[in-house]
Amino acid sequence: MNDLISKIRNRESKIGIIGLGYVGLPLSIRFSEEGFKIIGFDIDEKKVKLLNDGKSYIQHINEDDVFSMAKNNFTATTDFSRIANVDAIIICVPTPLDLHNEPDLRYIHGTLENIKIYLQENQLLVLESTTYPGTTEEEIVSFIEAIHNSKLNFTIGENYFVGYSPEREDPGNKNYTTKIIPKVVSGYTDNCLELTKALYDQIVDQTVPVSSPRVAEMTKIVENIYRAVNIGLANELKMVADKMDIDIYEVINAAATKPFGFTPFYPGPGLGGHCIPIDPFYLSWKAAQCGVDARFIKLAGHINTYMPEWVVKKLTNSLQKEKILFNKAKVLILGIAYKKNVGDYREAPSLKIIELLQAKKIKIDYYDPYVPTLAPTRKYNYKMSSVKLSRDLISKYDMVILVTDHDIFDYDLIKKNSKMIIDTRGRFNNKKNIIRA
Amino acid sequence: MNDLISKIRNRESKIGIIGLGYVGLPLSIRFSEEGFKIIGFDIDEKKVKLLNDGKSYIQHINEDDVFSMAKNNFTATTDFSRIANVDAIIICVPTPLDLHNEPDLRYIHGTLENIKIYLQENQLLVLESTTYPGTTEEEIVSFIEAIHNSKLNFTIGENYFVGYSPEREDPGNKNYTTKIIPKVVSGYTDNCLELTKALYDQIVDQTVPVSSPRVAEMTKIVENIYRAVNIGLANELKMVADKMDIDIYEVINAAATKPFGFTPFYPGPGLGGHCIPIDPFYLSWKAAQCGVDARFIKLAGHINTYMPEWVVKKLTNSLQKEKILFNKAKVLILGIAYKKNVGDYREAPSLKIIELLQAKKIKIDYYDPYVPTLAPTRKYNYKMSSVKLSRDLISKYDMVILVTDHDIFDYDLIKKNSKMIIDTRGRFNNKKNIIRA
Repeated sequence: MNDLISKIRNRESKIGIIGLGYVGLPLSIRFSEEGFKIIGFDIDEKKVKLLNDGKSYIQHINEDDVFSMAKNNFTATTDFSRIANVDAIIICVPTPLDLHNEPDLRYIHGTLENIKIYLQENQLLVLESTTYPGTTEEEIVSFIEAIHNSKLNFTIGENYFVGYSPEREDPGNKNYTTKIIPKVVSGYTDNCLELTKALYDQIVDQTVPVSSPRVAEMTKIVENIYRAVNIGLANELKMVADKMDIDIYEVINAAATKPFGFTPFYPGPGLGGHCIPIDPFYLSWKAAQCGVDARFIKLAGHINTYMPEWVVKKLTNSLQKEKILFNKAKVLILGIAYKKNVGDYREAPSLKIIELLQAKKIKIDYYDPYVPTLAPTRKYNYKMSSVKLSRDLISKYDMVILVTDHDIFDYDLIKKNSKMIIDTRGRFNNKKNIIRA
Repeated sequence: MNDLISKIRNRESKIGIIGLGYVGLPLSIRFSEEGFKIIGFDIDEKKVKLLNDGKSYIQHINEDDVFSMAKNNFTATTDFSRIANVDAIIICVPTPLDLHNEPDLRYIHGTLENIKIYLQENQLLVLESTTYPGTTEEEIVSFIEAIHNSKLNFTIGENYFVGYSPEREDPGNKNYTTKIIPKVVSGYTDNCLELTKALYDQIVDQTVPVSSPRVAEMTKIVENIYRAVNIGLANELKMVADKMDIDIYEVINAAATKPFGFTPFYPGPGLGGHCIPIDPFYLSWKAAQCGVDARFIKLAGHINTYMPEWVVKKLTNSLQKEKILFNKAKVLILGIAYKKNVGDYREAPSLKIIELLQAKKIKIDYYDPYVPTLAPTRKYNYKMSSVKLSRDLISKYDMVILVTDHDIFDYDLIKKNSKMIIDTRGRFNNKKNIIRA
């Protein structure tokens, strides 16, 4: 173990990072900046090729960083036998929900199967994927301890080490980079914790050790539950304020002047991305297993999931008020991405909004410079491309609906030329032809 | 109107403050510091006498401040005819809930009846009490406009002015005094807003004008809903963590190291005080009237109200585990006040905890230096006084339950001499004879 610690400190250890997406890629770049040798593993051959060519496939990740990493100390591969050559393995695979909104650990299980026969004594394995409390112990520790073959027999904490350290990436947030964000670290045993901490101490300014993987797993989920619940609350308050003819944005901004005890959260057309709409259900599922009902999580889920419908209802009510038949109506959606200034549209509410509008035979176009074309997702298969925004074009639509408030949008142009705007982001002032939704 | 503004700016206007409690008293002191003449109105003759004698009856309000105010420019009275002599009237009366958890505006109505025949043209009347959106317009404006008599006929915005400016007091918070906390101001008309703003600009560093009393009313309630919901969430997460054998305080403190997007809230034995347990129901009541269900408010209410029971269950489970019969058990409650370092026990969960323990025939004492004796409340009538804490005394109790974590408590003494501690505040480390609840 002490050997491994000094190899880590002297940058002589080789790091294997499994899953080269929104978490694994910036993590690889960070290790590369600190002079480590990194092997990046992914099952997607296209990604592997792009990265080895020094190209970034994530809009907010700088191509220069990928290029310099690929030139210096990083190789991507689909060949999991190379796990045998690394000192530390970090798993950054997705942890989505299945069709019943229950944890889907297939990528973790798949990874363990892929690496199983290549594991070596005295490696450190760390999971970064967000998951319910107990996963590291129940899934990873037991899996590794169950491996018996002619030469190997692992005892965690003695000849193999397992840790959990949740990712805290905030894609597109330039104030908080991987290096600056404090990192929670944990280990299955004291030795495991010491090694995990030593590893991350090389690449982040501050590690935060906690007493068990369970605590670290819960920590990450609690962070995202806090967001899901407070966004849900903002959405509920939006619906209440709407009935009372009160501008919820004016209320939230006034409340935000309280210098203590209040943090503003804003309503919107619904949750998106790979964290906030998903992670909370990992805890509610586990809680149910333990016989407790996680009611806040469920309520936030209900309200946030309802938002696209509510927004569409505001839009269709306005069409009816204007006496425009749905099958003659033309609507322009502004913004497809799930949050502003990024191109990521995983779980984006815009996709659901399109579905709901199309079901009513309303003709739709969209404009989003970060999403030139809509690729098929697990749920949807739209054949659409972004329009090019112009004065003439805007004025042809009966309604424009602002779904994602990218900063690059020309809001003046939009305001001046739209017949009517459905504003789900509070970006426009509450005026005659602006409808808050 | 301009006359009134210049009178205010030149400190020539006389201010009438109705309701001299947790809000009205510090507000009177603040106006007094700025050199205004103040008449304080209250229906409680005892309070009036104490204040005129320069004495404070609220533990965290400095007696020197009251003394100097009474000496210089403040008189308290129960005689509402003196309303005729003031330029501005500020109403700071309580807005509690009735037995059905619905808004009880009796103190506002009582005040209006008391002052009705003494109102004069060109007065400014401002409500500070927390209440549901619409109150100022529906209750105050209509009441005043309905006053017709031989000489008077009020038109709000022309010869009478009505505003709403929610109090934002945080009793005992020394970092944020009345002067420093920005104050939301609103008026029924533009003139009303201008006057209300001019008045408060004299005593606070920053006023925050909003477009209507309704928005200002909603703002204050949203601030407190945010707290009630997040404390409710922390309490739910506490119950979930408890089942998973996870220390919720370790989790919250680890999550709090995230430098963006997370604000820590801590669980506890239940809500107390005059704001957080009450205000949210003002909105849910009004929302129901408008046909919307405020589900987050209700859920937070359920969970927070359930806390005393949950805490008592943890205590009685421990007694059973230790094989101590309830009717032989002796329990010491540490802290009666609803929050630390104050003596206020309005709506405090300790009162409910005493009720639940006594119903099980458990013998109870309490220790709280800020609450020497328990005066009768609307719901409870306990004849108890605080014990004097000593090594010998503590060791006589089967269990000690920390309900309020006052900083003046001698935690070392408590820890060393208690047989068992039920800790509802996460103040003690999770050890063998410490039970988190």
